[in-house]
Amino acid sequence: MRMYDLITKKKHGEALTKEEIAFTVGGYVRGEIPDYQMSALLMAIWFRGMTDEETTELTLCMAHSGDMIDLSAIPGKKVDKHSTGGVGDKTTLIVTPIVAACGGKVAKMSGRGLGHTGGTVDKLESIPGYRTVLGRGEFFDVVNKCGLSIIGQSGNLATADKKLYALRDVTATVDSIPLIASSIMSKKLAAGSDCIVLDVKTGSGAFMKTLDDSIKLAQAMVAIGEGAGRHTVAFITDMDTPLGCSIGNSLEVMEAMDVLKGQGPEDLREVSLQLAEAMLYVIGKGTPEECRKLAEQAVADGSAFETFCSMVRAQGGDDSVLRDYSQFPQAPYKREVLAETDGFITNMNAEGVGVVSVVLGAGRETKDSGIDFSAGLVLHKKKGEAVRRGESLVTLYTSREKMLDEAERMYREAVQIGSEQPGEKPLVYARVEKDTVERY
Amino acid sequence: MRMYDLITKKKHGEALTKEEIAFTVGGYVRGEIPDYQMSALLMAIWFRGMTDEETTELTLCMAHSGDMIDLSAIPGKKVDKHSTGGVGDKTTLIVTPIVAACGGKVAKMSGRGLGHTGGTVDKLESIPGYRTVLGRGEFFDVVNKCGLSIIGQSGNLATADKKLYALRDVTATVDSIPLIASSIMSKKLAAGSDCIVLDVKTGSGAFMKTLDDSIKLAQAMVAIGEGAGRHTVAFITDMDTPLGCSIGNSLEVMEAMDVLKGQGPEDLREVSLQLAEAMLYVIGKGTPEECRKLAEQAVADGSAFETFCSMVRAQGGDDSVLRDYSQFPQAPYKREVLAETDGFITNMNAEGVGVVSVVLGAGRETKDSGIDFSAGLVLHKKKGEAVRRGESLVTLYTSREKMLDEAERMYREAVQIGSEQPGEKPLVYARVEKDTVERY
Repeated sequence: MRMYDLITKKKHGEALTKEEIAFTVGGYVRGEIPDYQMSALLMAIWFRGMTDEETTELTLCMAHSGDMIDLSAIPGKKVDKHSTGGVGDKTTLIVTPIVAACGGKVAKMSGRGLGHTGGTVDKLESIPGYRTVLGRGEFFDVVNKCGLSIIGQSGNLATADKKLYALRDVTATVDSIPLIASSIMSKKLAAGSDCIVLDVKTGSGAFMKTLDDSIKLAQAMVAIGEGAGRHTVAFITDMDTPLGCSIGNSLEVMEAMDVLKGQGPEDLREVSLQLAEAMLYVIGKGTPEECRKLAEQAVADGSAFETFCSMVRAQGGDDSVLRDYSQFPQAPYKREVLAETDGFITNMNAEGVGVVSVVLGAGRETKDSGIDFSAGLVLHKKKGEAVRRGESLVTLYTSREKMLDEAERMYREAVQIGSEQPGEKPLVYARVEKDTVERY
Repeated sequence: MRMYDLITKKKHGEALTKEEIAFTVGGYVRGEIPDYQMSALLMAIWFRGMTDEETTELTLCMAHSGDMIDLSAIPGKKVDKHSTGGVGDKTTLIVTPIVAACGGKVAKMSGRGLGHTGGTVDKLESIPGYRTVLGRGEFFDVVNKCGLSIIGQSGNLATADKKLYALRDVTATVDSIPLIASSIMSKKLAAGSDCIVLDVKTGSGAFMKTLDDSIKLAQAMVAIGEGAGRHTVAFITDMDTPLGCSIGNSLEVMEAMDVLKGQGPEDLREVSLQLAEAMLYVIGKGTPEECRKLAEQAVADGSAFETFCSMVRAQGGDDSVLRDYSQFPQAPYKREVLAETDGFITNMNAEGVGVVSVVLGAGRETKDSGIDFSAGLVLHKKKGEAVRRGESLVTLYTSREKMLDEAERMYREAVQIGSEQPGEKPLVYARVEKDTVERY
């Protein structure tokens, strides 16, 4: 088998066989296939796509290129959750304790943020003392004790994906649906859960800008999950505006805790309950309606919040901050950005708002940048809301005083105020299961 | 400027600017742009193509990446000729002395053969003593003295093309018309002639298998040549069957000398006269009809043959072999392949016949393989001719006795004998000039 022939085949739109994909992934990981041949193949895939069979095979090969985590030491059905990433998306912090409180098992490895979207691991590290690096044994112990553990992704998961992603990142071949789907799912398959719930974000702040592409990506991922024997459900949820009102690491933890305490913004609560319902459903906790009730109850009776606190304690964190937010380290500088006119928020560019959070210090500008856990923004007016001249649109938090002017300017650019109230858009656009797409 | 953005731009079908192309070629040659980004761009170009402006700019950048040969030390109009490569194509050995005999100046750098097509330099090296490596001064002296010099291509011509071609060769991005056109033309522009005549082969033995693609390639090359201020004309000529009857290095030299002596196969003679006419035409030797007459006369009066002999002597070669072919080293083994049935040659796969010549030792299997100058084949029956059972179809010449059976088997596979005489196909399909395509 020669890589040259496989590039030619794909270039002409033919599907690669199982053996050919295994040869490609294996050869690339072992360094036998050079980057320049792989990038030519990736670009041909960008143009020609991949069949479901090819995508599943690629995913399995990448999953098996690193550690395959065996969760059998944790009794019960394990369920994982993945979001394609958005601005203000702190649903993992809400959904996983709800599911654990209802008897689900969540052994979750999460990523760090890069670019304009945050990462769950960074958010958790804003809780003083919380350890995101646990040995395998301790990880399992926390899940067995609390029903839930969230740690950082281990270095040996889906080695091939790591190498391939780094190459895609510099060769403009990231934005290919089969490649995105296989990259995400290879890590999910390797992480070992029985069931997977996916939250595919769509809109200006998401990687997928259109609903059609988001559905295609969801379908590709569901096909892979089911093809690998994991019950998989995906939702398409809005990321045209940020989710909830808080963006920034400790700010998002506080907002997530608000929801777990039965408060918090309605959009965040609704998306979280939807995802929690689905996670309970896929592990067999009842009908969707029953699962929804279970989830609501776990919030109402405080058990979800207590589950989260117990995980934080088990991983060395100080859960008193979750009860009294004033104990979180506070940003030294803040600024209110005031409306300059009356009207309605007609548009809110989620990506633009995410970039503001990075400028304030809440995100990473490069892979090795540090993070200011207290930095970020709290929106007071979201899309569709009426504003009056002089009202605060947002509070900016930072330790970089000199960035406040720039952040304010960028925030004003990301948000439009007009005279007509815009129509409401759905929070959840569609639910994708094996062979079915239900649009709401 | 970032290579990533240029890949993205091309991937989405946008044209690159002059500055962007210069950045790409320059950065790649200096090693600042890695192979894996260049191969991704090349694959995007394979899918999206390039505009005439992009192709010309790429060609100019590649030409200027190495030595630009200044032929001003040679008085008069210099004319170059290039063939895209075919089986049995020895026209350079015929055409260039005709042009020189008629007062044209030909300072020609030729390539070696690789794969199933031969190279002019290899053919010339089959003449005992002939030196294909001359210093710049000696090269010019030979042209000034004989009107003609043919040497091997210098190492510093179009450096960027060399590096790019090596990458294309392993990433399945060779077969892209703008990339082929710019690769060929970058070397022609760097070689310094005022006028260029191109012979684009079409058919089973050619790189371009269809007439349409061949015309597109010719148009792309003519546009580049004219864009760079070189008068350029291209012909599309047949390479469905080999040109002439001899394939192999010294065998082809003998056949070329036959044509210069007013003998030789009709197809070879006709294509050669057509090309010679065009070369005389582009340097202003008269109307096409007048140029044709000049060319015919240079053959008839022996001046073209003598011109070739004088160049051979000037470059250290023994021209007595050209007068008495028995003085060429002879292949130790030969075999007649006899027809097994009566009929007509209905098909002759030129590429297949070319591969037989390689098996016999006439070509290179890898870049560093040696060549057996005496090996090859002489066809006795070409497409359309009647054969009788027992007649010889071809004589095979080799020093590899044990390859004769395999070569015979392969030759029989490449040639089909049927009961109906096939229709005649043109030798020259089209002539392409700036803004015009004349199909014959």
